[in-house]
Amino acid sequence: MSSALTPFIFKEDTIFILDQRKLPFKKEYVRCDTYKDVIKCIKEMVVRGAPVIGVVSGYGMYLAVRNYKGKDLKKYIIKVAKEFVSCRPTAYNLSYVVNRIKNLVIELQKDTPYKEVLKLVLEEVERIKEENRKSLQKIVENGIKLLKKNFCVLTHCNTGVLACGDIGSALGVIIEGYKHNKVSFVYVDETRPYLQGARLTMLELISAGVPCCMITDNMAGYVIKEKKVDCIIVGADRIAKNGDTANKIGTYTLAVLANYHKIPFYVIAPTSSIDKNLSTGKEIKIEERSADEVKYINGKLITLKTAKVFHPAFDVTPAELITAIVTEEGIFRYPYNFK
Amino acid sequence: MSSALTPFIFKEDTIFILDQRKLPFKKEYVRCDTYKDVIKCIKEMVVRGAPVIGVVSGYGMYLAVRNYKGKDLKKYIIKVAKEFVSCRPTAYNLSYVVNRIKNLVIELQKDTPYKEVLKLVLEEVERIKEENRKSLQKIVENGIKLLKKNFCVLTHCNTGVLACGDIGSALGVIIEGYKHNKVSFVYVDETRPYLQGARLTMLELISAGVPCCMITDNMAGYVIKEKKVDCIIVGADRIAKNGDTANKIGTYTLAVLANYHKIPFYVIAPTSSIDKNLSTGKEIKIEERSADEVKYINGKLITLKTAKVFHPAFDVTPAELITAIVTEEGIFRYPYNFK
Repeated sequence: MSSALTPFIFKEDTIFILDQRKLPFKKEYVRCDTYKDVIKCIKEMVVRGAPVIGVVSGYGMYLAVRNYKGKDLKKYIIKVAKEFVSCRPTAYNLSYVVNRIKNLVIELQKDTPYKEVLKLVLEEVERIKEENRKSLQKIVENGIKLLKKNFCVLTHCNTGVLACGDIGSALGVIIEGYKHNKVSFVYVDETRPYLQGARLTMLELISAGVPCCMITDNMAGYVIKEKKVDCIIVGADRIAKNGDTANKIGTYTLAVLANYHKIPFYVIAPTSSIDKNLSTGKEIKIEERSADEVKYINGKLITLKTAKVFHPAFDVTPAELITAIVTEEGIFRYPYNFK
Repeated sequence: MSSALTPFIFKEDTIFILDQRKLPFKKEYVRCDTYKDVIKCIKEMVVRGAPVIGVVSGYGMYLAVRNYKGKDLKKYIIKVAKEFVSCRPTAYNLSYVVNRIKNLVIELQKDTPYKEVLKLVLEEVERIKEENRKSLQKIVENGIKLLKKNFCVLTHCNTGVLACGDIGSALGVIIEGYKHNKVSFVYVDETRPYLQGARLTMLELISAGVPCCMITDNMAGYVIKEKKVDCIIVGADRIAKNGDTANKIGTYTLAVLANYHKIPFYVIAPTSSIDKNLSTGKEIKIEERSADEVKYINGKLITLKTAKVFHPAFDVTPAELITAIVTEEGIFRYPYNFK
């Protein structure tokens, strides 16, 4: 990990997951001994961010195998994989990783000794983690090519170390860009309802010494119009083959604003976010979360208890509004045709 | 007042101002015996909403006259008027009302008995209040002409009884529209940082029995794209002669979204919001409020204490993005040329 903000630690066959809901005020890890503990952490947003959810799920799958006492591991792992995939239906990295482990187990010779199975699974998880690290490094290298000198950047949600388990995707590009004098200032959407921008991105930027300023999400239009914002950079939770991109709710509004103001709108994500089963974003399932996550902030109601609230956790930005999608494989421009 | 939610009460030469910061959870009035008390209430957002701030300032000016013990009332009232105007620099109704009272006092015959001055000032304030009520009624009549059958409407901030001191402007149109089967559903932006949508508009809509649903401000794009939203209706704090409109921060983003989705964007406000000293919105002074109002929600920090925060309280929507501006004088369409 490239930061003291390590989103999870795997130690002595146990995963300790940093409780991101308590950041930036408290640094507490939640101990996970079973895959159910990991699923709970993902569902309850102890850990979030598509790439890191992917890696953490890999370790969760390993815990499932390690704790299994029954006789039909293959059947069991199919069931567990299903549980993982359904716990956050929009983030694709999760299904990507979980299916990779599932397929590895399913394809094992029937008589593979249990110890050998465990070793192979753990090796695969660590391979995934290492691939993730390397791809993020490459993504950031590619991403900063899009920036010129002293750009003023606007970003949404959190796409840094906490979201990715390493250097970060969109925020990695921003922080590395700052080190190379390609970014001079960052406007950070607070990112309601979970306030990942306020709590996590501000923490990462301040820790990295990058000049930044938080705004409420609804100020983005004013800031783009009145301040010199050169581009918007965001991450992705799932990308369809045509480039339509699901990301944190509010991303689509930003893409429309970028389009109107004729500034570039960049999506930065690993290839493991691209779902090649989907032709377009219309097929992406948008997770709806509970109304209470919007109605309560820090445990206090902000509206009437009886108020109806709609809470889509993500939205889909159509490809034509995305100036470029950057992965470890390069910089792609509209029209996209991922294979 | 047409509602139990009376934003202020004038009784026995004292103004009691409803503390809107505590709504919808508590209904408490702040007692104001002096004009300084009224200014404090306006500055600290005990009362907000351009039209009601106007009327309340009128009563505040009356308190100043009533309490004055010195010998140069005219000089004094100029000073007091200045204090009122600077306490919320963007809302125009405030300067409109305050200047009306100021001019009345300045133009009085030098030997007008004190009792007579008091009577004339109070009559003028009550005339303003009555004009406000009548103009709002007329605005609402005009505004509902823009709606067809069972419209799904999106709105921002609070523009109802609490903001206007009477039937409401934009929210008046929406609620009356519902009664006439012209509105069937309302999406309400929570309206960060002050959450006027969450706290006040939801309260008014639920009290009126109008089907509604709260969203975070950043969901507006998704909701317009995915749900059938027929139009966006908002109020105004100050309108330039060319129609450029200052309104609660976030309004401009909505106007851009409406433009992109080709749905109408309507501004509903009394003529007293039109500042005929301004040719365009570029001349409108945008009030910047404290970072803490963004950083703390219900007294709790949402980001690092050291985080830099930008807090413009309003933004300006250029006239070309406004489909129509509705006042008590009628429905105006772009290009605007208020005289």
